[in-house]
Amino acid sequence: MQKINWTQAAPGVWKATVGSPGGLTPLTCLNRKPRTEAMKELPEGNWPLSEEEIELRILTAGGSLLSLPLDPGEELYGTGLQFMRMNQRGRTRYLRVNSDPKQDTGETHAPVPFLVSGRGYGILVDSARAVTFYCGSALRQQEDAAAQARDRNMDRGWKATPVSDRLEIRLPQEGADVYLFAGPGMQDAVRRYNLFCGGGTLPPRWGLGFWHRVPTLYKDSEVEAEAREFRARDIPCDVIGLEPGWHSASYPVTYEWDAVRFPDPAGFVGRMKRSGFQVNLWEHPYLSPESALYDCMRKLSGSYSVWGGLAPDYTLEEARKLYSDQHDREHVSLGVSGYKLDECDGSELTRNSWMFPAHAEFPSGHDGEQMRQLYGLLLQDMTDRLYRGKNRRTYGLVRASNAGASNLPYVLYSDLYDHRQFVRALCNASFCGLLWTPEVRRADSAEDWVRRMQTVCFSPLAMLNAWGDGVKPWSYPEAEAIVKHYIRLRMRLLPYLYTVFAEYEMKGTPPFQAMPLVLAAEKPKKGDPTGAGLHASTEGESPNGFNTTEGAYGKQTEREWDDQFCIGRDLLVAPMFAGETGRDVLLPDGVWYEAETGVRHEGGRIVHVNCPLERLPLFIREGAVIPMMPALDHVPAGDTMIPIEMIHFGSVPGEGLLYDDDGETFDYEKSGDGWRKVSVTQTADGRFAGTAANGGPERRYSITGWRFAQTRLPLE
Amino acid sequence: MQKINWTQAAPGVWKATVGSPGGLTPLTCLNRKPRTEAMKELPEGNWPLSEEEIELRILTAGGSLLSLPLDPGEELYGTGLQFMRMNQRGRTRYLRVNSDPKQDTGETHAPVPFLVSGRGYGILVDSARAVTFYCGSALRQQEDAAAQARDRNMDRGWKATPVSDRLEIRLPQEGADVYLFAGPGMQDAVRRYNLFCGGGTLPPRWGLGFWHRVPTLYKDSEVEAEAREFRARDIPCDVIGLEPGWHSASYPVTYEWDAVRFPDPAGFVGRMKRSGFQVNLWEHPYLSPESALYDCMRKLSGSYSVWGGLAPDYTLEEARKLYSDQHDREHVSLGVSGYKLDECDGSELTRNSWMFPAHAEFPSGHDGEQMRQLYGLLLQDMTDRLYRGKNRRTYGLVRASNAGASNLPYVLYSDLYDHRQFVRALCNASFCGLLWTPEVRRADSAEDWVRRMQTVCFSPLAMLNAWGDGVKPWSYPEAEAIVKHYIRLRMRLLPYLYTVFAEYEMKGTPPFQAMPLVLAAEKPKKGDPTGAGLHASTEGESPNGFNTTEGAYGKQTEREWDDQFCIGRDLLVAPMFAGETGRDVLLPDGVWYEAETGVRHEGGRIVHVNCPLERLPLFIREGAVIPMMPALDHVPAGDTMIPIEMIHFGSVPGEGLLYDDDGETFDYEKSGDGWRKVSVTQTADGRFAGTAANGGPERRYSITGWRFAQTRLPLE
Repeated sequence: MQKINWTQAAPGVWKATVGSPGGLTPLTCLNRKPRTEAMKELPEGNWPLSEEEIELRILTAGGSLLSLPLDPGEELYGTGLQFMRMNQRGRTRYLRVNSDPKQDTGETHAPVPFLVSGRGYGILVDSARAVTFYCGSALRQQEDAAAQARDRNMDRGWKATPVSDRLEIRLPQEGADVYLFAGPGMQDAVRRYNLFCGGGTLPPRWGLGFWHRVPTLYKDSEVEAEAREFRARDIPCDVIGLEPGWHSASYPVTYEWDAVRFPDPAGFVGRMKRSGFQVNLWEHPYLSPESALYDCMRKLSGSYSVWGGLAPDYTLEEARKLYSDQHDREHVSLGVSGYKLDECDGSELTRNSWMFPAHAEFPSGHDGEQMRQLYGLLLQDMTDRLYRGKNRRTYGLVRASNAGASNLPYVLYSDLYDHRQFVRALCNASFCGLLWTPEVRRADSAEDWVRRMQTVCFSPLAMLNAWGDGVKPWSYPEAEAIVKHYIRLRMRLLPYLYTVFAEYEMKGTPPFQAMPLVLAAEKPKKGDPTGAGLHASTEGESPNGFNTTEGAYGKQTEREWDDQFCIGRDLLVAPMFAGETGRDVLLPDGVWYEAETGVRHEGGRIVHVNCPLERLPLFIREGAVIPMMPALDHVPAGDTMIPIEMIHFGSVPGEGLLYDDDGETFDYEKSGDGWRKVSVTQTADGRFAGTAANGGPERRYSITGWRFAQTRLPLE
Repeated sequence: MQKINWTQAAPGVWKATVGSPGGLTPLTCLNRKPRTEAMKELPEGNWPLSEEEIELRILTAGGSLLSLPLDPGEELYGTGLQFMRMNQRGRTRYLRVNSDPKQDTGETHAPVPFLVSGRGYGILVDSARAVTFYCGSALRQQEDAAAQARDRNMDRGWKATPVSDRLEIRLPQEGADVYLFAGPGMQDAVRRYNLFCGGGTLPPRWGLGFWHRVPTLYKDSEVEAEAREFRARDIPCDVIGLEPGWHSASYPVTYEWDAVRFPDPAGFVGRMKRSGFQVNLWEHPYLSPESALYDCMRKLSGSYSVWGGLAPDYTLEEARKLYSDQHDREHVSLGVSGYKLDECDGSELTRNSWMFPAHAEFPSGHDGEQMRQLYGLLLQDMTDRLYRGKNRRTYGLVRASNAGASNLPYVLYSDLYDHRQFVRALCNASFCGLLWTPEVRRADSAEDWVRRMQTVCFSPLAMLNAWGDGVKPWSYPEAEAIVKHYIRLRMRLLPYLYTVFAEYEMKGTPPFQAMPLVLAAEKPKKGDPTGAGLHASTEGESPNGFNTTEGAYGKQTEREWDDQFCIGRDLLVAPMFAGETGRDVLLPDGVWYEAETGVRHEGGRIVHVNCPLERLPLFIREGAVIPMMPALDHVPAGDTMIPIEMIHFGSVPGEGLLYDDDGETFDYEKSGDGWRKVSVTQTADGRFAGTAANGGPERRYSITGWRFAQTRLPLE
């Protein structure tokens, strides 16, 4: 057993260095300043475990093993963008980046070596290597093995996954920095983690509008025609995304506009901006020999290529500068609003084996495994700094991430396309400082497509991605009205969304929250954050129940409530999936109203709601004060004022927050904030009155009215 | 660049030691004696590559990289039991054992670090670690990157997987022994590999009969009743397999008979044998606390358990002895014929995370990664030696294997259940000294089930596995007659199958052969063993062709002929899959007859055959002399003679072999062989005559007749 030296790294955060990690890690490559002041405002966080309970062993197999105690009912959330389950307890998580994460191994686009425990603490391994977390899945022989043995022949209680009482983390050969984040609650630990990584991210206001990506080979006139069609149909849209075809060559890419499809980039981007459309550009990291950057980037690149293109070493200042200057000159200075950073998520497991190997060597001395684990972070960081340097906020998409990403203005996406997995990923992202969009492409049926569109309109990035199949909001005529309604509803709720993101940026509070985080915030320190009795594991089946064509170990049938989530404190979204006409919803304590029907529900229990295709189960908390704006066709730029209506819910007084700033720059960092405390009081004779305290300068909102004691959202 | 010292290890085999591997490896743990004499009879094999062409580099990332040149068209086969593709060229193969290999990463039940090249040589990395083969998938930046770049926007020739001109193998940190196997043809290299590993395996004759596994909780009387049902319905059956329920406790297991379901094991096994049924027992390696072996095995086991059971360290002689003595005393000495060795194939990627971790420590000093990679081999080896010690042959099933397994009397199987993947696995097994059974369980339809039963009757182990769903050959009444016909046909062809396996055992010739091996045997040294023009890659698609719900990189649509195979020299099997009424078949040069219709086909090309459900496309080579026995209900034991009819095909003279011995012991190793050269000559007046040269002693066959110039198999 080795001694571990813990030192305080920030309020409620402790650090220990095991071995001599050195070199590149997620936190060192991002190098964001912890939000120490904001961390001090979190509830007092004590040392979450006694030092003796945490063990460190050097392994004969190489590397070392960090081991922490687990309570019997203790749940473990996190490890990044997991698609298959929410509670990782009992599972081995192999945290390697993987562009095609179809199996429940832990590998994913964003494998984050961060776990938050139902006991109320978080643990991060800051390493550029693939770390393995044994979340109570490694059953030690001496300690607890025999007691776990059960007879599958006759014992219906047999489980495919026996559960151990230790969390074991295999650290890389060279060691790693380990961080512990205090609670007291799970949400406190997550907020502490986000603030330690520099806080959350506040998108430009337009980033929270509707996004549409056009077919890959569209030329400028086709793009502009499709943009006009949105206006003609009165369907809000703020961002149009271009796919690989805007490059003069792609796979690998040039980062240069195609002279035939986009003869006048500046003119095109300018015309788009003037009609209220931001332009987002797709790219990946692999540089084509056709690119003017190729020759100077060659000596700054890895020893292996991807699709014949260079894999630049973006840990080198010189490479970063070449990339940034070119992007500034040819995109950003033209007005391009941001990027979609694709295919930075390869590994040995990559489908079609297109990625550079783990043994690739980079000029900085880093190897392929490290570069693959961090490539997504490096690209996000470079582009983020490029925009920060111009005091412009960006908001974009990325397919790979890792630890420390909360401060980066990027949203994850995937080539996978299972609707339930997409919602689960949205939930899991909230444990690790990640954002996720369940982007919509085409669908098997109008019903499936509508259900996906309803979900995406209540996600961090509401996008229809037509790059490959050209689907548009009006592609399914029978569904156009429903989809239009939800895109407009998103616009109306934009002030609420923007406030929720401001709380992420400044207070570290995840804007979208999985149910365990929501419930833990109400019941801190509870071992079982979803509340006793709200779920029961029925994993494993009687022998007669085995399905020999689907696997011999029974299946995980635990109800995880991984198909619903909250946006901020007051909005609960319970997506519907094709084939359903109703569903169960777990409502937290308090009173909740179905936002579109006004039906009142007592919370703290599971309710069943029926929802025809034209309706999504959306709940608002009693006492909430929701700021809404009109369903404008896009977010107005510059100094244009936006009229805001304050909607108060239910029959009790309430309060809320409204955050406002210029929506485009980082001036809010200097000029203090634009927070307004909003409160609704009730007079003796039962009448309600609302007040909004004054906030900072650069205000874009003017409150034009109040509605009290509402039970449903005003839709127009 | 490091110097490599190659030394000759056997005729046509060269060995180089990189680093200081030491410790446990597949070959050292099996320790089989190379069949040097037989190797000398192979065609002269020269040094396949010039020494300078093979490079070795120490990697900054740790370990070293072995690199060999690849011709542009060079195909690479092997790397073990692959389910997704046959030609591994262009793919990265991560050779870690995996119990649930659903993705095309290289991981599988039997990851064998052996490749055979279309250029006509084989290469083996003898290591207990997970080795990664970059089969021309790692594109070096300096050498060949730029030339490979293409524009996916407009170039329809763009490929998702660019192809490099080097085979790169990342060796483990500590190094490894590397072996090169000379050709001249691919088949020669594979035979050399098999012979170097001790030769192939010759099952007991009964092992090639029909197998049936009964539901897991059956008690003795139910097993015997089901066995009698086979006889009553005149459906041949030689082996009945018992599933976990025979253990007094399972998952983990006791290896002890359940006193309620099997009160009199000796009596039960004896009665089964007397009615012509061998008994096969399911087990896995994890020892239950309920077992009498538990206490003494505890100190000999790994530091982590599986399902609460011990994971014994079977590299220790003491542990091997405990296991073997108990199995001898309680199973083998009772007449049990062999085992089904389940779940020895876990890793970090194991579904439900039930396996011990890579960092597990074993008393021998080996770690969990090594033990997991070799567990399957260790169990096969222990049980094989147990039976050899009694001069009895066994034949069984195993779910994990590795290099050097050709001499082990075991057949691989999986929980996967895709029919096409099952046939592909059968083909791929032939490149690496493996055997595979596409075992049949239940099916979605009678049609699907019949097609699977037809396939399994022409596989190394013809088994219906009813452990979980109780399906029987008569479960689909509309299909019973068809299935009965094919089970009986397998019995009739048993002498041919047995001869083919004898050639495997003594000459190293794979009994079942993928088409590239068959064609390479005819065209040695050909770069493209399937013959120019017989397939063309259409991987990648035009942008408009992308399917955004199925993946963005286009799909591999190359025709690999991985859905047909040969048994020995003269039988070609082209399985049918549910939904098909006909299929294309690639016939090698020569003339071929459809075995059941007599239709004549010119070979050396692709033919289309229509096949109603009651027929499987089965072809016999002109000139073949096929020994057949009656469709007995089981293989007779002891001295009972078996009448053999010799069937000659086509209108030209021919010759073949007939191998015969006692079918049960290893006496053939001492007493020389029971080979008979069979020839059919034609007299001036066109009449045919057949002769069978005398073979060794212990003969069980009596040739009772000849049929000449046949075009179809006599079915009764």
